[in-house]
Amino acid sequence: MTTQQLVEQIHKKKSFLCIGLDVDLNKIPTHLLKEEDPIFAFNKAIIDATHHLCVAYKPNTAFYEAYGLKGWKALERTIEYLNENYPDIFTIADAKRGDIGNTSTRYAKAFLEDLAFDSITVAPYMGKDSVEPFLAFENKHTIMLALTSNEGAFDFQTKTVDGKQLYKQVLETSKSWNNSRNLMYVVGATKAEYFSEIRQIIPDSFLLVPGVGAQGGNLQDVCKYGMNTNVGLLINSSRGIIYASNGNDFGQAAAKKAEALQQQMMSILNQ
Amino acid sequence: MTTQQLVEQIHKKKSFLCIGLDVDLNKIPTHLLKEEDPIFAFNKAIIDATHHLCVAYKPNTAFYEAYGLKGWKALERTIEYLNENYPDIFTIADAKRGDIGNTSTRYAKAFLEDLAFDSITVAPYMGKDSVEPFLAFENKHTIMLALTSNEGAFDFQTKTVDGKQLYKQVLETSKSWNNSRNLMYVVGATKAEYFSEIRQIIPDSFLLVPGVGAQGGNLQDVCKYGMNTNVGLLINSSRGIIYASNGNDFGQAAAKKAEALQQQMMSILNQ
Repeated sequence: MTTQQLVEQIHKKKSFLCIGLDVDLNKIPTHLLKEEDPIFAFNKAIIDATHHLCVAYKPNTAFYEAYGLKGWKALERTIEYLNENYPDIFTIADAKRGDIGNTSTRYAKAFLEDLAFDSITVAPYMGKDSVEPFLAFENKHTIMLALTSNEGAFDFQTKTVDGKQLYKQVLETSKSWNNSRNLMYVVGATKAEYFSEIRQIIPDSFLLVPGVGAQGGNLQDVCKYGMNTNVGLLINSSRGIIYASNGNDFGQAAAKKAEALQQQMMSILNQ
Repeated sequence: MTTQQLVEQIHKKKSFLCIGLDVDLNKIPTHLLKEEDPIFAFNKAIIDATHHLCVAYKPNTAFYEAYGLKGWKALERTIEYLNENYPDIFTIADAKRGDIGNTSTRYAKAFLEDLAFDSITVAPYMGKDSVEPFLAFENKHTIMLALTSNEGAFDFQTKTVDGKQLYKQVLETSKSWNNSRNLMYVVGATKAEYFSEIRQIIPDSFLLVPGVGAQGGNLQDVCKYGMNTNVGLLINSSRGIIYASNGNDFGQAAAKKAEALQQQMMSILNQ
């Protein structure tokens, strides 16, 4: 999917919501555990109930790897289901990968080509040659960690490096990499005041924003400081939506939570 | 495996060699492609031929994920085979994972508990709460990226943060984390002169050292500056050993390459 197609979807649906598919078998409705593939059954129901309210889905690979082979199978089925039935949805493999060049190429091929995700999250610590193999894929997107929403973000990301905070160095440096137009960035919502400075460095890039709701971030503030002329934001919510209920009504309950966020987004887009 | 058991194995085998199991179906002997599980068949033959010459094996997860379900299956079979047949071998999941706390817990459980690796490599960018979930596992080891062997290492790792290079900040800061005794670090061999400064910060920790041979690092220099009273080094070689031949003699050829390194290590240990 091109960035332009993503922007079109946002305006069409009046939503820039991304739903995180972080499936925990201890939290899903117990009646699903009788299914042959409970993880996929849960995802399918959530997707069918919410696809008109969001523009992106983001399975975090940790939740699938935690179930070994059956988890990996469920991840494959989930992305296949999305690509076949909802080709207008932007898909994100939240994998936070990164390795030396020839190894990163392996990850890139696995997620962007074989599984055919539209994008993958990557970690910046190993620098340019660990990220460029992902950027080489046409009409695919590499979402690099910049400023994350967890406490540990303050351990290194906000430390001053050569006169500038590390996460800003990461943003700045990455602009010079080959195919940097295919970069997006992870910026946590818990630090809304950081967004205006970030926009000075990368005015045009899309930002994937975790931490609205559950982790205390405020949607209005993020939009005030982070939105650009292309919207430029994907706001992620995971647990707050997918675990809204663990009864038979879990799909409807998830849709209700997603709609509440979508309605706020619509009113922001209409302003 | 405890650190003490690892040190005992090093002295017993007169080796601190780690062999990287980075299986590429385009590089393995073609006669193996007829096997039901060529990746596992290759690994099994390499392991059977070299286990007496090394103390550790390190499959890089990228090479397995690149083959989807069958790759994941081969990874499972490889670690099971190692744990059943060579319980004295130290096993490393080279996964370079890292995420917010509850998600890192998922990765930790997947690799250290379910797959039962002795250790896993992790990335430091997200800080303390992204690494501590791995450190919580008793007699398991978390090998954190500090100074990698690729060119991109100079993008951020060697930049000065609050008066100290980032990789040194990472080493220093991590010492205060809960269960930091379970930390080891990745330090590339291509920068042997960095080892003496690193040893001032973490005198006792084990270092996993890629980049000897293929990437230009020198074993003598690494040992001169990096060895401690517990040896404290695991030197990794992947392609240089496992692809020594692609004929029927590939196991023997790998053993010959491994033995050449082991002999150098023995003479260093005897000094």
